[in-house]
Amino acid sequence: MTNGFTLYGSSISGNCLKPKWVAERLGVPVKWIEMDSFDGSTRTPEFLALNPAGQVPLAIFDDGRKLAQSNAIMIYLAEGSDLIPRDAYDRARMFEWLFWEQYSHEPVVAVRIARLHYLKTPEAELDPNLLKKGNAALARLELQLTETQYLVGATLTLADIALVAYTRKSQLGGFNLSDYPAVMAWIARVDRDLGIEGQYLA
Amino acid sequence: MTNGFTLYGSSISGNCLKPKWVAERLGVPVKWIEMDSFDGSTRTPEFLALNPAGQVPLAIFDDGRKLAQSNAIMIYLAEGSDLIPRDAYDRARMFEWLFWEQYSHEPVVAVRIARLHYLKTPEAELDPNLLKKGNAALARLELQLTETQYLVGATLTLADIALVAYTRKSQLGGFNLSDYPAVMAWIARVDRDLGIEGQYLA
Repeated sequence: MTNGFTLYGSSISGNCLKPKWVAERLGVPVKWIEMDSFDGSTRTPEFLALNPAGQVPLAIFDDGRKLAQSNAIMIYLAEGSDLIPRDAYDRARMFEWLFWEQYSHEPVVAVRIARLHYLKTPEAELDPNLLKKGNAALARLELQLTETQYLVGATLTLADIALVAYTRKSQLGGFNLSDYPAVMAWIARVDRDLGIEGQYLA
Repeated sequence: MTNGFTLYGSSISGNCLKPKWVAERLGVPVKWIEMDSFDGSTRTPEFLALNPAGQVPLAIFDDGRKLAQSNAIMIYLAEGSDLIPRDAYDRARMFEWLFWEQYSHEPVVAVRIARLHYLKTPEAELDPNLLKKGNAALARLELQLTETQYLVGATLTLADIALVAYTRKSQLGGFNLSDYPAVMAWIARVDRDLGIEGQYLA
């Protein structure tokens, strides 16, 4: 899909790491530009001119075209690869997981990691719904992963990469992964597939 | 992609209407089962057995396969149709809008409509960030739609259907669409394309 691209991202952000991991797995050259999501540098006039949504990750391809949204960048990089199922229904289920991730997982799991671990917000000041909804999201993953090795069956897809990004560091958000043994085994499996064991966990 | 399907949905939910509109446009037979998102009927053991995420819309195809997430159902129905761009980069930008919709538009615009209009929450009790972020989302649409007739260029795609679903009734959430003239013209255009002028606005 592309010869190479520049990726603006923060290496503590699962959303930003997703397209980086996909590029590395597929052998697409990627030039990483480190950004800080917390200091306002994604909201400067210069950055807003690149991405009016004021968010990272942002990909700029070698032909100058721009693309935002972690899952959209992953899909663009991975079209035609084995990270997207060829079967239409399996592909649809991959999309189901990708949208569910952005709606029901990231806004609770990633937000609790950010507040508790990076912003050092005292636990008593956090919305208690974050813990409840985050555990519901982890339980939803556990339910699937007791049935299948990966979220859409027997092989790694973009759904696993999207969901593992924050799940693998959810303990930083006060979630007890030991309550979810199938999730823990799946994290180890996906980490090994991506060659990121022990990395990007701070 | 399918001969026909049953769609569990609420007709006041933009998320549920999206796949209904796509099916109708593409001539796919759809059997609608009306659900109430507010009375707990998507959280009964019977419904959770159909969709462990406890959400509508839920599609059950004639072969018994199930699929959740409004945007995933739309993609499945529309694969191979002109609602998904054939050009890889245009298709990627469509995905960018679909993920942005679920992360940055629906959780503020739809949530404010639900609280203010359906749940009759007094405005003073609403999180003021909902109004601010909702207006930022509408301004983001306005910026694009002053440049192009549709979100991904010159023709209707799933991005327009996803974004119009709640934008067209955002006044129920206290947003002033008259501040966004290009958005208003686009709503009229998409409504006409879908044949839904004046409908589903209560």
